[in-house]
Amino acid sequence: MSEKAVVAPRRGPRGRVRRQVLDAARELVESAGYSAFTVDALVALSRVSKTTIYRWWDNRAEVALDMMEDAYGLPADVDEKGTTRSRIERCLSAEMTYHGGPAGRVLRGILADAQHRPALAATVERRYLAPRRAVLQHLVQRGIDEKEFRCDANAELMASLLIAPFLQSLLTGWPPRTEDLPREVVEALFIGLRVTPC
Amino acid sequence: MSEKAVVAPRRGPRGRVRRQVLDAARELVESAGYSAFTVDALVALSRVSKTTIYRWWDNRAEVALDMMEDAYGLPADVDEKGTTRSRIERCLSAEMTYHGGPAGRVLRGILADAQHRPALAATVERRYLAPRRAVLQHLVQRGIDEKEFRCDANAELMASLLIAPFLQSLLTGWPPRTEDLPREVVEALFIGLRVTPC
Repeated sequence: MSEKAVVAPRRGPRGRVRRQVLDAARELVESAGYSAFTVDALVALSRVSKTTIYRWWDNRAEVALDMMEDAYGLPADVDEKGTTRSRIERCLSAEMTYHGGPAGRVLRGILADAQHRPALAATVERRYLAPRRAVLQHLVQRGIDEKEFRCDANAELMASLLIAPFLQSLLTGWPPRTEDLPREVVEALFIGLRVTPC
Repeated sequence: MSEKAVVAPRRGPRGRVRRQVLDAARELVESAGYSAFTVDALVALSRVSKTTIYRWWDNRAEVALDMMEDAYGLPADVDEKGTTRSRIERCLSAEMTYHGGPAGRVLRGILADAQHRPALAATVERRYLAPRRAVLQHLVQRGIDEKEFRCDANAELMASLLIAPFLQSLLTGWPPRTEDLPREVVEALFIGLRVTPC
């Protein structure tokens, strides 16, 4: 499984309608923030009917995620060089950089929205969060398989623990995004708290 | 420093006005959800003027946090028994239980709101998030001081790593809240990923 393969495929129509909707979505979000991003506003600006929009997208989170990927891409892919630990670090650096750019503002808006609407929460989980965790889980599992990490580590839990401080940072500002944070997080999770003979 | 001492003191007026405002806040949030909780709705239901409300509370997050603490308390205090590791586990269990109750819905609402309004983000950081991390940091530091944890651990970062999966769970549903989660998180952070001689 390549790291790319776990990212959910794009949805929605191709061509003119898709372009009109995604361009309008971007303009709305960038000019007035995610809280101004409603399907009604999208209909008005894109001149695509509500029926057509709902034929192709389940909800506004789905449109926003397509817009985000179209306009800003996804967190950068990590090359195969170095230890698994160093690749996890680079993967978290890419995620943190992504959060610090325009996509981070969109993600914050979608996640805010998701607190009040379970359907939006399910969309962002399926489309963004689960794929990001899957990349990390895949890397942790490789570290276990290649005996770089201990054999009884829980790769799924560890993937959650690795990404959680970055999502917390995105949504609460803590811990602050610093260049050293990915290295510090990975080191803390690698070494652990217990006292071991040096 | 006792674990209680790090929790920020309550603010706002005492007596009748406080009671009217907090009761109205609770009724609004419990009947229609946090998204219905605006200062205008609070004025209408409490019959306390907007001027008076803003004299005592900076914003609606401040009212909501007072209401939450008044109606639901704070996460349960952890007794002094056992190892520091077991106390951290119980502290995270108390936090997770709290998130699973009515206070969790209020916290989700405030944190959603905070994505669009920096002043609300600052309020929830100062009033709720920083005090919860401080309790954990205090416990980790004690574990370091008493040589239960390794001497070069970063207590502040570790506190963030301990709480982050629970905040992530509250806001994204992942990892799911299970009875075992606090033990699993603490164990993963205690043992770490590296291969050590058994």
